[in-house]
Amino acid sequence: MPYPYGETKTVILANGEFPAHPVALAILNNSKYLVCCDGAINNLAKTNLIPDAIVGDCDSLSEDSLSKFADIIHRISEQETNDLTKAVQFCIKQGKRNITILGATGKREDHTIANISLLCDYMKDADVEMVTDYGVFVAIDSDSIFESEVKQQVSLFSIDKMPLTSHNLAYPINNHVFTNWWQATLNECTDTEFTIETKGRAVVYRAF
Amino acid sequence: MPYPYGETKTVILANGEFPAHPVALAILNNSKYLVCCDGAINNLAKTNLIPDAIVGDCDSLSEDSLSKFADIIHRISEQETNDLTKAVQFCIKQGKRNITILGATGKREDHTIANISLLCDYMKDADVEMVTDYGVFVAIDSDSIFESEVKQQVSLFSIDKMPLTSHNLAYPINNHVFTNWWQATLNECTDTEFTIETKGRAVVYRAF
Repeated sequence: MPYPYGETKTVILANGEFPAHPVALAILNNSKYLVCCDGAINNLAKTNLIPDAIVGDCDSLSEDSLSKFADIIHRISEQETNDLTKAVQFCIKQGKRNITILGATGKREDHTIANISLLCDYMKDADVEMVTDYGVFVAIDSDSIFESEVKQQVSLFSIDKMPLTSHNLAYPINNHVFTNWWQATLNECTDTEFTIETKGRAVVYRAF
Repeated sequence: MPYPYGETKTVILANGEFPAHPVALAILNNSKYLVCCDGAINNLAKTNLIPDAIVGDCDSLSEDSLSKFADIIHRISEQETNDLTKAVQFCIKQGKRNITILGATGKREDHTIANISLLCDYMKDADVEMVTDYGVFVAIDSDSIFESEVKQQVSLFSIDKMPLTSHNLAYPINNHVFTNWWQATLNECTDTEFTIETKGRAVVYRAF
């Protein structure tokens, strides 16, 4: 896996489990622009990191946090999108189009699934990946090559019912349409890169 | 939520995060028939619980475990299904049709998503629910009533692109077809029960 990154990133810290894996922590500690979903500020406060912005409806922020971070709080109250989407939209408005999301999984599973799935929305406007304590998620909607390691565990989530073809995966996929989106999980890379060919949306997961 | 259960259950302990929530632990400690996915035996060994069966390909079991549990190990080596599905199929063969799955989330997110999604397969043959540290998942394919609490957080995952209608949810769903399966998440119950009407498959999640 191509870590650590060669370039610095915009990082969004979401309100799931605070990152514990060294890769995720390295990304967090080396961010150049750090946006914190409002509920995540309590965990961030345990570190030495200061966010550049706090985004969300901010209903759950303590009086202390509201006062301490007044200059960087961006309150967005609408209920149609979740905090993570508000943070991504905020970053895009700031011209940040190369974003790594951390802390978006590991607590309520419905939040985990929604956050992972939303990568398919975000890819229209920015280059977004999600790094968890267990691996990396990226959404695609066209042919894509991924750096990998031999025997790296790979899962695909086919969102649209469109044909998928793989190269360099242990269980090859040959122009197959998956009727359920989880049915392309638990594969394995056989080389130092693999390719997914598709015209539909898919989420690609490489486990650490 | 109708816990603790009025009737005892068959429990499957999967190989995700070991249960920590009191509801999940109460179900584990009160099981009448406990099946352990092979990788979960190491965590179970830290408790006083003895499983009735250990199911899986058993490749990862230590020599010590293989010897200690020889009488209850049911080795199923085929690669087409994951350990959780092997455990469910084993239970059904034993005539157990009222099953609670624990420990199926909380580690690799692709496993979490696959395990939740597989509830849609299991419902054909048994009454299966999944209890995590954050809530309860149940799969449905027909009109269903759920006991709940006022303001309980509810998420729906629409698997088939079939109309869904809700009663007693804060954001009502009226004969709507969700084009993406995560788009009915983050709702809330407004009464002590709610109803989902559908002819398609859906997974219903009630957060604790």
